[in-house]
Amino acid sequence: MAVIGTGLIGTSVALAASRQGVTVFLSDRDPSAARTAAGLGAGLARTPRERVDLAVLAVPPSKVGSVLVDAQRRRLAHSYTDVASVKAGPERVALARAPAPSRYIGGHPLAGRELSGPLAARAELFEGRPWVLTPSPLTSGVAWRHARELAELCGAVPLVMRSRDHDETVALTSHVPHLMASLTAARLRQIPGGAGRLAGQGLRDVTRIAAGDSGLWTDILQSNAAAMTGVVRELQADLARVATALAVLADPDADGRPAGLRTMTDLLDRGIAGLAAIPGAAAGTAGGADRVRVAVADRPGELPRLLDALAGLGIDAVLGVDADAGSGPLVRFAVPEGDGDSAAAKLRADGWDAEPAGNAGD
Amino acid sequence: MAVIGTGLIGTSVALAASRQGVTVFLSDRDPSAARTAAGLGAGLARTPRERVDLAVLAVPPSKVGSVLVDAQRRRLAHSYTDVASVKAGPERVALARAPAPSRYIGGHPLAGRELSGPLAARAELFEGRPWVLTPSPLTSGVAWRHARELAELCGAVPLVMRSRDHDETVALTSHVPHLMASLTAARLRQIPGGAGRLAGQGLRDVTRIAAGDSGLWTDILQSNAAAMTGVVRELQADLARVATALAVLADPDADGRPAGLRTMTDLLDRGIAGLAAIPGAAAGTAGGADRVRVAVADRPGELPRLLDALAGLGIDAVLGVDADAGSGPLVRFAVPEGDGDSAAAKLRADGWDAEPAGNAGD
Repeated sequence: MAVIGTGLIGTSVALAASRQGVTVFLSDRDPSAARTAAGLGAGLARTPRERVDLAVLAVPPSKVGSVLVDAQRRRLAHSYTDVASVKAGPERVALARAPAPSRYIGGHPLAGRELSGPLAARAELFEGRPWVLTPSPLTSGVAWRHARELAELCGAVPLVMRSRDHDETVALTSHVPHLMASLTAARLRQIPGGAGRLAGQGLRDVTRIAAGDSGLWTDILQSNAAAMTGVVRELQADLARVATALAVLADPDADGRPAGLRTMTDLLDRGIAGLAAIPGAAAGTAGGADRVRVAVADRPGELPRLLDALAGLGIDAVLGVDADAGSGPLVRFAVPEGDGDSAAAKLRADGWDAEPAGNAGD
Repeated sequence: MAVIGTGLIGTSVALAASRQGVTVFLSDRDPSAARTAAGLGAGLARTPRERVDLAVLAVPPSKVGSVLVDAQRRRLAHSYTDVASVKAGPERVALARAPAPSRYIGGHPLAGRELSGPLAARAELFEGRPWVLTPSPLTSGVAWRHARELAELCGAVPLVMRSRDHDETVALTSHVPHLMASLTAARLRQIPGGAGRLAGQGLRDVTRIAAGDSGLWTDILQSNAAAMTGVVRELQADLARVATALAVLADPDADGRPAGLRTMTDLLDRGIAGLAAIPGAAAGTAGGADRVRVAVADRPGELPRLLDALAGLGIDAVLGVDADAGSGPLVRFAVPEGDGDSAAAKLRADGWDAEPAGNAGD
């Protein structure tokens, strides 16, 4: 295996793979970072002599495309994946410019720390965490299998999504929250000297992720700008409503105080409702839901075709992956309780090898 | 001692005081809440037969004024304080309408949980946490001493601030962050079913405080609307800049991409700079700073007068409180390293009993 980019994520992947007995070749545009990773036991800081099975591109989102093109020209590996937190842009470059787009599958392990660089790496970083894979219509079964094996090697839970669905989800779950943490933290510069001691755990939690590397995060946010734009516009509208309400409430004699109070309570209640989207349960299960299992043929385009079919049926398009069914991946997804039989029947009517797989609570 | 309002904070105060041997009388507009608190060992759920030393008004910010007026009419206590997270409004009501404004001093222990009600109470809730006291120009030495003794009884670190400075600070450290957490959480309602499993610790941290009771938080936010308005306007301006930059960055062919990237990096860097306002050190100390100590006469108005004098000198207006100097409180504050001698000299020139008290790092 080869890892290009020995920062926090690349080195953590390399550490996890090395620990499982995989030979890992490390490289970085900064050779001393690769040597540091090698010194930590993450692998060998040199170019492999033969083509490796899998190359992991652990570089910022905007660099994945060009690094992929370069690595494929060098025939570095049989399969290629990346670990960037944005997936549509790299997929677009792979389909348009990579010499062998079928050998690439997008990847995104949902794990990280505020620290960066090889010295912050941990082999356990991915344990139990979701690892999203985003096959393109051209992705081969081999590339898909290599990437899934990597995720499992790292102890992660492989999931399958369409690249655009992934980007829209992480805009809401990661990129916009980072922005909000930074906006909140930036205002703290106005606090007079010692008054910072009034900060409590709540403030620390809200602003913690704002400590992330600003160069890397500029790259992430710009790479997902398309998916973020709509959410940020909605936040602008919410904030404008709040500003108007606060201006009314700041004046004890103003008309419209009841409406101002309703605006505030409504926002707070919508926040509480939004928290329900964050599962308390372990990744890969959904309480109170039926499961459906689909055996997918080992042909390029089959997984994206299934994701499109599910989206067309209005079904949750995040798939868990069970053990390989011999001929190809066996994927499962959740539907609202009681809908398992009808969802499986609809998919069978469309030619899929689908069957109900019990209830998540079983 | 009497505690009016046996929610999370009131019951926690009562538990801490009872544990130190203080007799505590509990009341609540919901008698079953007071009985629950009594059942937990927080005190006696009945009206005291004689005037108590201190009444703690543990009610939402907008209710402090009317509850204070009512309790003073009933001659419930010698001194009165509250625990609300907004201080200017209650002080205004006390000065304008309370029968005995000299007997009141505002208080705000910086502690809390997302849970509410007496069953969430903990005697240890305030240990090591700042407890801000905001004396008005009329506050008597007795009221000041009773409130400080309560803070110390609860294991908290008493600090003194002007009510308006307090409100401006908590707007930045608590109320605006709560708003931002709610705004971020509210957007999560758009996440499709199973995609919530992509949520990581970062999102959980950013949105955790949004779980707070929306009724209580509406009261808090409206009570501090005046101090929040300016900060929210600045956030609107920041967010507008970000939205413009993202719109440019979403278009790969747009002019102005370098400017868009600079806008994003600048915001992220300002966020990192803002985090420096949150001290890593323990409350009550400020690393790399000189200390000055002032013995304050035990007369109403002396503490607020000192706070005004310090603000006039451009000095951090948050005061730590040392042991009582017999004739009145002995307060200390931090100034930039090397400025201790000159600050003490300026205060002495203005008639204060001030002296340098070494360096915080000593």
